[in-house]
Amino acid sequence: MTAAETWPPLREELRGLEPYGAPQLSLEQAPVQLNVNENPYGPSEACAAAIARAVGEAASSLNRYPDREFVALRGALAAYLNASGGSDVTPDMVWAANGSNEVMLQLLQAFGGPGRRALSFAPTYSMYPEYARDTITEWVVGHREHDFTLDLDHARSLVEEVGPSVVLLPSPNNPTGTALPHDAIGVLCEAAGDGLVVVDEAYGEFRRTDTPSALELLPSHRNLVVTRTMSKAFALAGGRLGYLAADPAIADAIRVVRLPYHLSAVTQAAALAALGHADELLARVDDLRAERDATVDWLRARGLTVADSDANFVLFGTFADRHAVWQGLLDRGVLIRETGPAGWLRVSIGTPVEMGQFRTALTEVMEEL
Amino acid sequence: MTAAETWPPLREELRGLEPYGAPQLSLEQAPVQLNVNENPYGPSEACAAAIARAVGEAASSLNRYPDREFVALRGALAAYLNASGGSDVTPDMVWAANGSNEVMLQLLQAFGGPGRRALSFAPTYSMYPEYARDTITEWVVGHREHDFTLDLDHARSLVEEVGPSVVLLPSPNNPTGTALPHDAIGVLCEAAGDGLVVVDEAYGEFRRTDTPSALELLPSHRNLVVTRTMSKAFALAGGRLGYLAADPAIADAIRVVRLPYHLSAVTQAAALAALGHADELLARVDDLRAERDATVDWLRARGLTVADSDANFVLFGTFADRHAVWQGLLDRGVLIRETGPAGWLRVSIGTPVEMGQFRTALTEVMEEL
Repeated sequence: MTAAETWPPLREELRGLEPYGAPQLSLEQAPVQLNVNENPYGPSEACAAAIARAVGEAASSLNRYPDREFVALRGALAAYLNASGGSDVTPDMVWAANGSNEVMLQLLQAFGGPGRRALSFAPTYSMYPEYARDTITEWVVGHREHDFTLDLDHARSLVEEVGPSVVLLPSPNNPTGTALPHDAIGVLCEAAGDGLVVVDEAYGEFRRTDTPSALELLPSHRNLVVTRTMSKAFALAGGRLGYLAADPAIADAIRVVRLPYHLSAVTQAAALAALGHADELLARVDDLRAERDATVDWLRARGLTVADSDANFVLFGTFADRHAVWQGLLDRGVLIRETGPAGWLRVSIGTPVEMGQFRTALTEVMEEL
Repeated sequence: MTAAETWPPLREELRGLEPYGAPQLSLEQAPVQLNVNENPYGPSEACAAAIARAVGEAASSLNRYPDREFVALRGALAAYLNASGGSDVTPDMVWAANGSNEVMLQLLQAFGGPGRRALSFAPTYSMYPEYARDTITEWVVGHREHDFTLDLDHARSLVEEVGPSVVLLPSPNNPTGTALPHDAIGVLCEAAGDGLVVVDEAYGEFRRTDTPSALELLPSHRNLVVTRTMSKAFALAGGRLGYLAADPAIADAIRVVRLPYHLSAVTQAAALAALGHADELLARVDDLRAERDATVDWLRARGLTVADSDANFVLFGTFADRHAVWQGLLDRGVLIRETGPAGWLRVSIGTPVEMGQFRTALTEVMEEL
C-alpha cells in the first residue's frame, strides 16, 4: 500500500467506511421530509420563547463551566418519566447525554469493551454495530421472525450462549416499529445474568394503548436500562437530549467514562425549558398515532405488506426494486428512507397534508412499476 | 469476588476509578473561583441577548435534526482562526464537537485504537490518558524538563522509538503554562511520520507576544492538527464548543466515528452568535495576560518558584504540604487547583479584585506555614 492510499492514517477497520447518516436534502430538494422520524410539529411560539429566555439567562454566565451533574435536568427528567409510564423514578436513576446515541456509546464504553460482547436482533437500528465498533466491543446479532417479532426461545438461548455484557433491545424497534411484550423483557433480563439489558424506547411515547413501557419493569430487574430521547415525541431532535433510567449504581458508574461537562449549560437550559412545556410538545402524539394507524391501513389496502408499528414510522414493502420506488417518491418531492431488509421502505409519520402527498406520490409510483 | 462486589458490571479496568473533574463548589462555599481556568468575564448583555435571539430562532424548528455538517459554524470558525494566528484556513479544514475533549476523543477513536499508541510528555493535561483508556489506545508518556520545557532530543527519540499514531502536545501546556517553540513542533511532526501531531491550543489566545501559534505550521505539515476551544479566551465554557484545524482529509475522516448530529442546533446557534461577538468576548484577553504576568512577578517576589506561563493560569510552588495551602486558601474563600507535580499548585487568572483576594489569602496562609 502506498503512502497516498493510507492517508489519512485511520485505523484499519475504519478505512473506506461511509459516515452514518441519511441524506440531508433541503426543503427545496424535498419539500416533504419523511425520512428520519422527526416530529412534524415544531415547538409553539410560546415554547420557543421559553427556550430562548432560558438560554438567554444561562448566557450571561457562559464563561463558567456547566453543572457537571446536571442536577436540575435530572430532576425534571425523572418527573417526566413518572408521568410517562414510569413510577418511583428518582433523579439518581437518571443519566443524560447529547442524544441517546451518546448515552448508548457511554453504556458500551463503561460496560462493553475488549473481550466483551454486545447483542441485538436484526433487523434493527443500524447505529448499534457502530457503537460496538467504536468501543471495541464484539458485536453479535441474532435474528427476528418474518413479522419482526422476537422468538423468545431463540433470543433466550442466544443470550445464554453468548453471555453479552449488553443486550440492546429497541422497543419499538427501528426500522420495523415492533414493540416487545413485558414477558420477553423479563425473560431476557433473567437470561442476561449481570449483563445489562438496554430497552431503547426512543419511540416509546408512540406505543399503542395496549403496549406497556419497560419503565414498569425497573423495580423488578436491576440489570434493566430504559433509554428515551427528547428527539421524537418531544419534538426536540435539534436539541440533542437523550437519557436513561436504571439502577442508581449504573447511572453513577457512567460518570467514569463521560467527558467532563458533556452537557452544555445551553443544552441543559433548553431541555429544562422544553420539559416545562411537555404537555404542549406531546399534545400531537395522539394525532401522530392515529395518522400512523391510518397509514398502516391505507398501505395494507393497497395490497402491501406492512409491519405492525408502535412508533412514528411504518415499514412497508416489499418491492423488487425499492430504490426505484424511493427515487420515484423523491422525484415527486417526498423523501422517505431506504432502510430495513431488502425490498422494504420506511416512511415517517408527518402531518395529514404530508401523508396525503405521500399517498398520492406512492399511488403514482406504483402505477408506473 | 461476590456478585455484590462486581455490581454494576463495569469493565475491569474502570472499577474503583473516580470520575474526572475538579470539585464544583457553590459561590457561597467559595466566592473566588480560580480553579478551572475559566474566563472571569462573562458575555455582555448584548452578546447574551444575541445568543438568546439566535437560539430562539433555532427553537422554532427544533423538531428537525440539526445540520450534521454544521456548515455555517465551520465557516465562522475558519474565519476566526484566520484572524487568530492562522492563514488560509478553509471550512473543510475545520472540525468541531462538544468541547475540545470530544474532539480529542474522536481523534483517538479514528486514529488510535487497539494496537496503536498515543504519546505525550508529563506533567501534562490529566484527561489525555483517559481519552486513550476510553479508546483502547496504549498510552505512553515521556517527561518534561524541570522547567517543564521539552528536551527536543528526548522527545524526538521517544517519538521515533514508540511510533505513536497520535502525539498530544499542548501548547501552552496544562497545568504548567509552557508553550512550544515552532522548531520543536516541526521536528516532532517530521519524527512522527504519518502519525498525527495534535497541538492542543486550548489556551492559545493567551500566549505571550513572542509566542507563535502552531496554526502557522499547518501548510508545512499535513500530519499537524491544531485544536482550539471557545471555553477559555472566548469565555464560553458553558457552551461546550471545541474545534480543530487540519488537513481536510483528517477533518473528513473524523466523520466516520462522530455520532450523527453530535452538535445540536442550539449549540450551533449559540456558538455562531458568540463568534459574531468575537471582538467583545476577546477584548479582555489582554487584561488577563497582563494580570497573569503580574501574578507571576508577585509570586516570584514572594520567593516562590513559578513556571513561565503563556496561559490564563500560573503553576507555582513548591510546598511541602500543598494540600494545607490549598485548604488554607479555600478557608478564606479562594478556590484554586491542587494539580501538577507534587508540591505545586495552579491558580487561574481572575479579575484584579479576585487576584487581590488571592494574594491576600496566600500571604496569610504562607505566614501560618
